[in-house]
Parts: sequence; C-alpha cells; structure tokens
Amino acid sequence: MSKRTIGILTGGGDCPGLNAAIRGIAKTSILDYGWNVIGIQDGYYGLMNDLKRELTFKDVSNILPLGGTILGTSNKANPFASLEEGKKPIDVSDRVVENLEKWNIDALFCIGGDGTHAIAHQLSKKYPNIIGVPKTIDNDLMCTEQTFGFDTACSFVTESLDRIHSTAQSHHRVMVIEVMGRYAGWIALEGGIAGGGDIILIPEMPFSWKKVVESVKVRSKLGKRFSIVVVSEGAHPDGEDMVVREVIKDSPDPLRLGGIGEMVADRIEKETGHESRYTVLGHLQRGGSPSFFDRILATRYGVAAARLAKENDFGKMVALRGTDIVSASIEAATEGLKLVTPDMELIKAAKSVGTSFGV
Amino acid sequence: MSKRTIGILTGGGDCPGLNAAIRGIAKTSILDYGWNVIGIQDGYYGLMNDLKRELTFKDVSNILPLGGTILGTSNKANPFASLEEGKKPIDVSDRVVENLEKWNIDALFCIGGDGTHAIAHQLSKKYPNIIGVPKTIDNDLMCTEQTFGFDTACSFVTESLDRIHSTAQSHHRVMVIEVMGRYAGWIALEGGIAGGGDIILIPEMPFSWKKVVESVKVRSKLGKRFSIVVVSEGAHPDGEDMVVREVIKDSPDPLRLGGIGEMVADRIEKETGHESRYTVLGHLQRGGSPSFFDRILATRYGVAAARLAKENDFGKMVALRGTDIVSASIEAATEGLKLVTPDMELIKAAKSVGTSFGV
Amino acid sequence: MSKRTIGILTGGGDCPGLNAAIRGIAKTSILDYGWNVIGIQDGYYGLMNDLKRELTFKDVSNILPLGGTILGTSNKANPFASLEEGKKPIDVSDRVVENLEKWNIDALFCIGGDGTHAIAHQLSKKYPNIIGVPKTIDNDLMCTEQTFGFDTACSFVTESLDRIHSTAQSHHRVMVIEVMGRYAGWIALEGGIAGGGDIILIPEMPFSWKKVVESVKVRSKLGKRFSIVVVSEGAHPDGEDMVVREVIKDSPDPLRLGGIGEMVADRIEKETGHESRYTVLGHLQRGGSPSFFDRILATRYGVAAARLAKENDFGKMVALRGTDIVSASIEAATEGLKLVTPDMELIKAAKSVGTSFGV
Amino acid sequence: MSKRTIGILTGGGDCPGLNAAIRGIAKTSILDYGWNVIGIQDGYYGLMNDLKRELTFKDVSNILPLGGTILGTSNKANPFASLEEGKKPIDVSDRVVENLEKWNIDALFCIGGDGTHAIAHQLSKKYPNIIGVPKTIDNDLMCTEQTFGFDTACSFVTESLDRIHSTAQSHHRVMVIEVMGRYAGWIALEGGIAGGGDIILIPEMPFSWKKVVESVKVRSKLGKRFSIVVVSEGAHPDGEDMVVREVIKDSPDPLRLGGIGEMVADRIEKETGHESRYTVLGHLQRGGSPSFFDRILATRYGVAAARLAKENDFGKMVALRGTDIVSASIEAATEGLKLVTPDMELIKAAKSVGTSFGV
Repeated sequence: MSKRTIGILTGGGDCPGLNAAIRGIAKTSILDYGWNVIGIQDGYYGLMNDLKRELTFKDVSNILPLGGTILGTSNKANPFASLEEGKKPIDVSDRVVENLEKWNIDALFCIGGDGTHAIAHQLSKKYPNIIGVPKTIDNDLMCTEQTFGFDTACSFVTESLDRIHSTAQSHHRVMVIEVMGRYAGWIALEGGIAGGGDIILIPEMPFSWKKVVESVKVRSKLGKRFSIVVVSEGAHPDGEDMVVREVIKDSPDPLRLGGIGEMVADRIEKETGHESRYTVLGHLQRGGSPSFFDRILATRYGVAAARLAKENDFGKMVALRGTDIVSASIEAATEGLKLVTPDMELIKAAKSVGTSFGV
Repeated sequence: MSKRTIGILTGGGDCPGLNAAIRGIAKTSILDYGWNVIGIQDGYYGLMNDLKRELTFKDVSNILPLGGTILGTSNKANPFASLEEGKKPIDVSDRVVENLEKWNIDALFCIGGDGTHAIAHQLSKKYPNIIGVPKTIDNDLMCTEQTFGFDTACSFVTESLDRIHSTAQSHHRVMVIEVMGRYAGWIALEGGIAGGGDIILIPEMPFSWKKVVESVKVRSKLGKRFSIVVVSEGAHPDGEDMVVREVIKDSPDPLRLGGIGEMVADRIEKETGHESRYTVLGHLQRGGSPSFFDRILATRYGVAAARLAKENDFGKMVALRGTDIVSASIEAATEGLKLVTPDMELIKAAKSVGTSFGV
Repeated sequence: MSKRTIGILTGGGDCPGLNAAIRGIAKTSILDYGWNVIGIQDGYYGLMNDLKRELTFKDVSNILPLGGTILGTSNKANPFASLEEGKKPIDVSDRVVENLEKWNIDALFCIGGDGTHAIAHQLSKKYPNIIGVPKTIDNDLMCTEQTFGFDTACSFVTESLDRIHSTAQSHHRVMVIEVMGRYAGWIALEGGIAGGGDIILIPEMPFSWKKVVESVKVRSKLGKRFSIVVVSEGAHPDGEDMVVREVIKDSPDPLRLGGIGEMVADRIEKETGHESRYTVLGHLQRGGSPSFFDRILATRYGVAAARLAKENDFGKMVALRGTDIVSASIEAATEGLKLVTPDMELIKAAKSVGTSFGV
Repeated sequence: MSKRTIGILTGGGDCPGLNAAIRGIAKTSILDYGWNVIGIQDGYYGLMNDLKRELTFKDVSNILPLGGTILGTSNKANPFASLEEGKKPIDVSDRVVENLEKWNIDALFCIGGDGTHAIAHQLSKKYPNIIGVPKTIDNDLMCTEQTFGFDTACSFVTESLDRIHSTAQSHHRVMVIEVMGRYAGWIALEGGIAGGGDIILIPEMPFSWKKVVESVKVRSKLGKRFSIVVVSEGAHPDGEDMVVREVIKDSPDPLRLGGIGEMVADRIEKETGHESRYTVLGHLQRGGSPSFFDRILATRYGVAAARLAKENDFGKMVALRGTDIVSASIEAATEGLKLVTPDMELIKAAKSVGTSFGV
C-alpha cells in the first residue's frame, strides 16, 4: 500500500479529549505517513448511512483545546442491531463493510468506550483493520490504566465540591452531589477524594443506610456541622438495585442511572434532622475543554494508534501502562468493565484521611 | 459615642461576596473609626439565641476570596415569627432588641436579600440603628442596580453553557439548563445571553409551548442540529403557575421553585423528536470564590455601609447607581422585587442576536 | 437605501470581547435590518490594502466565547501616517475613502480604543458614516463608564493575585506584580483591590519610595511577613518619568511602558532586607475567553451600534451610562484619557480596607 | 513505641499540593495510628531555629484545596551549610539532631524536591528516621514517575497558552512563553504539547537558532501567520550555556535561570521580520489551588509516607510507579535529576503532531 486512506469515527457519549485524539491520528497520518484521512460523521451511524468527509491538515488544526467532537457522535447506532431501518433491530454490518471497501478505507479508527469497542470487536471479524482508542469519562475500560476524559470530569467534580463546600459550611447543611460513572465508582471515588468528600458512595461498595446516617451524626458530634456526600449514579444500598431513571430499549447501554442523590439527601434529612440538599452534576461533567492531562493522553493515544496502523498491528486498542503507551487486544478490552475493588490502596488512603464509604 | 460597637449578620441563602462585605465593614470600622466589631452567627438566629463573637482585624484578613460566610447564615430564622420555641411561630423581636442593647451594639449591619431586608425594616421600628447591605445572586432587590453575588452566579452559568455547548453540538441534542432566580429572570437572561442560549425562558415572560417548539424546529431547518435552552426556575407557560417543588411552612419565602427544566426537555423531545436532556445547575450557582466584579462591589458596599453608620444615617441600604455607591431607604428597597421588563433594552438586544423567548 | 452594506474593523491591541461585538453588529445587521456585512481584515491596514471578506450569519455564529478577533487587528496602521509605502509616513486617507466607496460601504464600524477612535474621528471628516465601539482592557476611554475587555483583564489579575498569595505567604516574601494599563491605573487599582493587594502603585498617584518601603515595614511589624504589591506599568516615583521599555517610531502610541515592577522589587529587597520577587502578567491579560460581564457589554454595544447606523446617527461612539447603553460623539471621546482621580470613592474604599498607595 | 511523635517539614520552592501532603501524613498519623504531630516551620530553618507547633486534626482540616504550605518553607536553609550564624557557612547539623531528640520526634517527614532530599539524605546518617515525600513543579526527581505540583503547573501553562493563542492569531505575531523547569524540560515539553505550542525549546535538546527561525518561516509559508514558542528557562542554543539571571551565593541551588524567552523573541523578530513578544509565566506556575491530579497524588503520598513510618521503613521516599504508590531509597532519589531524553516517545509524539524542537 503506497498511499493509504484511513477512517476515523467517535462513538458513545461526549468526552473531553476526542478532538485531541482525532488530531493526533490525523496529523500523524498526514505528516508522518502521507495518508488520506476520512472523518466518519456521528459514529457508527455515519458508517451505516454514508456520512463522511475528508479531513485536511487545516481541519484538524486548532481543535486541540475544543470540547466535544468535530465528527459528531451517536450513542445508539449499532450496525449489528440497527434501529434505523424499521421497528425491529436488524443487522446491517455487511453494508458497513461494503461502505468501508467502497470508500477504500485501509484502516478504521474507533474512538470510544466499552460500547464502541464491543461493536468494533464484532466488526473486526468481518473487517479486521480496526484500531481502538479508549475514551470515557467513567474510566471503566479494561486493559488501560486510564482513559482520556476522566481527568477532566474529575477536575470538574473537584471544583464543584470546592464550590459546594462554602454553602455547606455557611448553612451547616449536608450537601449531596450525584456524579456520573455508570457501573463504576471511579469518578465519585477520585473526584470525591480530591474535593474532600466526607462520605463517598460507589456501586462497588453497596452502602448501609445506617452507616451513612451514623457518619453524618459522628461528624456532628465532633462539631462539624456540615457534611459533603459524593454519590455515584450507580451507588445503591446493600441488597437493593441501582436506581434506574429510564430504560432505553434496544440501546447498547439500555439503562440510564440516576436519582440516588435525591434519595440519599432525603433519607439523611429525615433521619438526622440536618437540612440536606442535593445537586446532580449531570452533563457538565462531559463537556468543556480537556484538561492538561487529557490533552496529553489523547494526543499520545492518537499518535500511537496511527503507528499501530502503520505497522499493520490491527485488532488492537492503544492503552496506558505507567508512563508508557502500549496496546492490548480489543477483544480483551471488552471482556468486562474495570471496577473499583474495595481493598485497593486508593480506598485505604481515602479511609486514612477520614472518608466514610457507608459500609 | 467615643468608641462604638457594631454588629454584623448575614442572612438568607449563600452568596459569593459575603466575606468581602463583612471584611469591608469590619476593616473600615477598625482601621478608620476604631470601633469594636461583633460578628453575629447564623443570621437572625444568632440574634435570637445569643450567638456572637468578636471580629478582630486578623479574623477578617485573607477572607476576601472565600465563598460562603464566616458568620454562618440561616434562611428560616425570623424574630417576628420564630419557629424555634414551639409549634406556632411567635414574635421574639423584643428579646432581640434586648440582646442588642445588652451587647451594647450601637449599629447593626444586615447583609442579605429581600427577606433579610424585610425583617430589618420591621426591626428598625424597635431598633432604628440598622444599615442594610444588598446581596443576592438573583439581583432582584429594588433601589440598587446590582447586588453582589449576581456576577459570580452568572459567570458560572456562562461557563456551564460553554461546557454544555460541546455536548449539544456533538450529539445534535437539545440541552435544557435550569438556573436559579426565584421570581426574577435576571440570571437566566444575562447568563443566557452571555452563554449564547438559543431560547431563554423567564418568569416575567410566560412562554408558549408552541413558540418554544417552533424555535427549535426553525433552528433545525436552518441546519442547526442542536439548541441550548436556558430556563429560569420560575419560568412557566402562559396561563399556568410556576412549578413548586416544595412548600416550606411559615418560612419567609415559603415556596421552593424548580422542575420546569425537566418539563421543558420532555416536551421538546416529544414534540420535535430531537433527543433532549436537562441539567439543573442548583447550588453550584451559590458557591465558590466571588468574581472580580463581586469582590469590588461587596468591598465598596461594606466600606460605604460603615460610613453611613459613622454619619448616623440609619435605616438605609447601600446601593449601586452607575459607578457610584449611594443609599436608599430600607423601606423603599423592600416594597417589591426588581423584575425584568419585557420591553427593556437587554431583551431587545438578545432578540437582535437571535434569542427566542418563547413568546 | 433599501439594502445597506456595512463594514466592520477591529483596531489596536487584542482584547477579550471583540468577537462578541462583531457578532452583535453583524447579527443585528443581518437579522433585524437585512444588510450585507463586510469584515475588513487587520484593522485600518485592511482598509488601506483592500483586505476584506463577506461575513455571513454562519461566520459570526459560535464566536461569542472566543478571545481575539476573527478579523485580525493591527496597532500600527494609520491611514493618515502610513508606514507601508516608504520610509516617511504618508497620508493615504483618500485611498481609504475611495476603497469604502468602491466597496459600497454605507457605514463603517470601528471597534477599538483611543488610537482607533482618534483615527476614526479624523477619517469622519472625509467619510462621515462612522460608528465607534469602545474596547480596551485599560478602561481609559472617555465618555463611557466602561469598555469591554476591562472586566476580563481584571478577572485575570485577580486570579493571578490569588495564586501569588500562596507563594508570598509560604515564603514570607514581597511579591510584586506588574500589570498593564498604559497611562491609566484602572487595572492595577481594581484588579489590585479585588486580589487583596497590600500596596497599589498607579501612574495617577506618583509614589514615594520612602512610603512604599515604610508600608512593607509596617506590615512586617504587625506580624505580616509577606506583602503583595500591584504595580501599573505606568507607575513611577514622584518627580520621575514612567519607565519606557521601547520607543516605537511613528506609531500612534509611540511608547511601550514596563519594567517598573522589577525596579520596585529590587528597591524593596534592598531597603527592607525582605526577599522580593516580581512577575509581569503581560499578554496573558489580553487573551482568553471574555468574561460574563464583557460578553454582555460587547453584545449590547454591538447591537446598539447597528441601531445607530440604522438611525443614521453617525459620528457617534456607543457608551455605557449606569445600566443604559447611550452614545457620545467620537470627537468628545477622543479629547483625552479617562484617568483615576486620587480622591475618588474607589481610592478611599481601598484605603479603608488597608491598601497603601505609596503616597 | 506506644505513642509516637512525628515531625513534618516542607522545603524548597512553593508547590501546589504541599498542604494536601501535610494533611495526608497528619490525618493518617492521628486517625489511624494515634500519633502526635509536630509541624516544623519554614523547612530546615525551623529545625535549626526551634520553630515548631503541634498540628491537631482541626489544623489540617479544610487545607486540601489550599495552595502554598501552612508550615512555611525556606529554600536557602541548609543545616550542613548554615548561613544564619555568620558570614561563612557552618555545619549546625548536630544541633538539628539535638532538637529532634529534645522534641522527642520519632520520625521526620521531609516534603520537598531534590535539594530537600539531598539534605535529608545527609541528615539520615546522623538521624536515620527520615521519610521523604517528592514534590516539585519541575518533575525532575528520580525514582518516581511524577511529583505533585507538576500537573498544576502544567495546567496553568496550558491555560496560558490558550490565552496567548488568541492574541497571536489576532496580531499575526510570534508569541514566546518562558516557563520554569530549571535543568529539566518537563514543564515546557508537556505544557507545550497540551497548549499546542508550535516550537518547544528545552535544556536537554540544545537548539539551533537557524532551525528555530526556519520553523517560523515554514509556518509562515504554509499560511500560518502566527507561532507559539514555549521556552524552558534552562533552554539554550547548542554550544552555549544556560542564561543565568542571578548567582545566589552558598545556596543549595546557586543559579537562577531565566531570560532566554526575551532572547528568543528578539532573535526571531530580527531574523524573520515577524512581530514577536515574550511573556514570562514566573511565579504564577507555583501558586494556586492544586489540580485534581495533584490533590490525589499528594494525599496518597502523605498516607503512604505515614505507613512507611509505621512499618519503621526509614530512609525511603514515597514514589509513583504506574498506578501504584511504592518507595525508593532517598539515596537513589538524589543521585541525579530525571531529565527528558530526546528519543523518548513523548518527544516523538510531539513531532508527529508537528512540533519543532529547533534541532
């Protein structure tokens, strides 16, 4: 192959650093390898529906600090269970492969989280020249120590807790902050530690109402008239299920979690008599300019992904190990989710500085 | 009076700039006039319950950038309708006046919004040496062009809209952001203009569902696949009431508004078919370090308030007029709320740059 | 005139809010009046050298939060003393008028500071259909209470002082921060008050070395082992001239000030024995996304400027008076600079909270 | 030892995260182990001069987000070469050991960079119960993948470059930004990549004037009328020395670097004719609230350091390896500096996205 053509798509929820990763792949492809770059619009939806455009060097200049993705994204489109064509999901993956061939795409870069990589893995059985790039604010992808987007999301959580602190102290209130993370507690755990959360509730450590209430009361007895509670959207009491806000039929991730923050605030107010308020950080965690860390990580991922393609090392996802960028098989990366383990050093460190996990 | 003693309290909801105002009053009193300064804790609650401490120069040093209030606040305590002593609210204002006399307070500074000033006005009939300092993020106080806290709150709304923009664009979504403001639309209006909101809904301009939906559709036809809708918590459709989240019995402000953001997102999704999401900014708007503007304004208010006391010009609230700090009678300041008027220049300017108000 | 064509240029130094003002003029012109809009590139340089392009609605969409100016700017180009064509400055203003007529420009909008408005005033004698829009981070323009850019610059100064505080306190150092402002002390004064500067030195109040040193020593005696000194680039000791870093020949503003910060730090260290360091904020003050306040002000200015053109009310500059947008004659606005007066309320307020001006 | 007493000191330059580390050590010591905690003031200076106070749980509450160090610091004091007692530096280390014994300190925690650890290593020969905690914005400490403070400093550099970009683009200028880092280029390299620097100059890769000028010209030819140059304070042309701003006699780090930024701007302007400006970020890089990342890292370091003391594992410095907190001998950590290597992946990634290193 003298002059290759590559395609890039971004799938799943919005995440800071997507443009930095696109830029990394595209600039390396154009400058180092002299390839053509095609941007596929709106994730797998664009692959299925012929939405694409060339990405020139100018198109990817100055996009490093921008939040969002210049390519658009979709978190419903699935070539193996397409909802577009009728009421029942159908498999249009053959059409997708035809499109890739018709467009002369020599390598496809899928930037996304576990849903995007699961589809990429399935697709790679029909079209093997796929490289994965891990992004998600939830940091729940296996085979990599960190995904880009996580640092920015946690930075926002940290700043938000700083803001909330002043109100909590001034009003002697319990302030409950519900954060994202789906089935993983990483954002609540790390954002919560950095923001000085007094109680942190995460899905991997189902909590006891009694212990949560007790923690607030103990602080109160020590003269601390306020408490900050950081609740992961997937947190739930021991023996109960996660709070599901909405069931999205036929979606790759069919549940939308949320609502536990309000429940926690109500219960604490009722059982302790302390005025309690809750705030749901919501989509603010997904947007905005990527942090220093995420810009570096996404750039390195992008450059390394292009290099994997150059070396014809397909079926791989780029990954972080220590200070190195390495790669893992997409298959291994999609075999489960990377979750918090209750006995990890980070949990112990949090406990050592006084954090309660309500267990 | 050779050496006076003054008392300072902060009442109502948390608001950035409270510490700057306390510092302004206290430093001027200590440095310029050589007075003693007493900090009354938790607003009127402290006046009623004997909670106070001396404020030294050191106590008010380095507090300028801090959010919240070092004095604590309460937004329920009312000496004319105290809930503390029994089930039925009773008038304990005589006890409050006794306390002020017992503590040798020569002047009382009440920093707060309309609730705090309404009580101050009542109290001034029994204890006339009162000076008011206007604070509220809602900017709805009469007789002043601006209250401190508003600039910081709107700055946060603006930054939040910047963040939300990237997600809206990437996902081609309608993003609805619910902001504070109670009965006044100032935060939604000014934060919304500065953040580039496409549709802004405020209580003073009851909206039409038809027009709101139409605005989204018109944008869609022009090729804009996303919209940002900024909704004041008190916004409501024409002919309907505000959405009341909670009724707080016997409170100075008995209604807690909120919930309209979710309703707007649901309705737009249902009627346009565009994916819609909502975010409630909540208490994040009240916290954090005060902005440049609010630090200056609160400092000037504090210094001017001390000067009013020096001149025995009581029963007044400091106020901003143009670039000048002036004063108004507390009575006049509490005769109503300062609301947005639909034909004001700011509304017209917003329309000129393409903003819809759903009317 | 059924369908007008207007031209917009931005002149002078970079300033946050320029794009918001361009957007305000252009959107109002297109949406409200149906006019054509021409963007003239690189300020007066583009007028002289035929650099222009149409600005469509899409061109001015999503530019509200962007720092800088999409039109480019120049702070040397002057049609009445052009340096482009040879060694001696020559008058090319007739060519500029020819260009404006050739391009069918019915109204020219000049967004800039005192230099830009001085040229606009001269030009208006040959081509009267000019509207001025006041921008400058220095806030030194007459006839308006505020220019956009000032709030953003001061916000940055405030944040920088917050940062510097921690180092000053930890190291028990005198930290000197040199800020912009040219001949006016507004940035140092307001940024300095908001950032809690202990000593503020401005050009309008030539300082005494003795008093500056004394202020540091007094703080030291009170147990404060650090001091923050905010120095305007034009500040100078009584009886001495401003520190001129560079003389720019034939430029509208021929002097570049700066260097006084280093001198102040050296002198304090030498005379007090306290370790002293200086930092020059420099161009960081000019860049970045405009603040909430500046976005609102620039938008309102832009809309109001377009309206003046609609009403054929030329030779005017839009201006802020209290909460209103008004207009003033460009001539009056260029008759001098708006400077700090030593007896103004703001200076007194700063003194009341303990600030020294070294006088 | 039933109930231990530990001492904590912070040495060297100010660095965001110091308070988080102090809090981590102190809270773990108090809560988990029931130890007494002594805060030694102003680094080794306090050890030599008997400056100390008890740190209670309350003292270390709410200090997590604060910049600076509540203990004060000194970057000149050295017990082995004390300048305090006379003109010639003398060894007062025996007195320091006596003090430690007199105060019943069972373990001494030294939080600092290479200078602080070098002294700690020397001291450990006389007083072995020492634990090191690595901090420095420069990230140049051996045996750890990262020091806290680096992420915050680079985040500030990144934001500053975002600000500078708008001015560079609007004025078509070359903007040179000089950053800290001493003999190591980490801040320039990582901050520069994240901020989209076009040219990055670091001490480990002495640059060629010709290549730097060429890089600006090449961009110009490609239609890019501006360039951003990030210069490490220790950067220097091939064959020339670093620019030394000041020689500090008898100091542990006797050279103050800086001034290369101005030289680079001047040379580029002279040789390309492009208007060039420089900004020195200076002490702004050291101050401010620690970033999310640094708060987590400093907290984990603090907790792990306390644990090392619990296990009597002295002479060690805590360190980061991948996602784990490990330890290294203080001796090994002080055998040299961790520098950028020109063939590392990060350099290659930067080149792949178009960055020039002027070589």
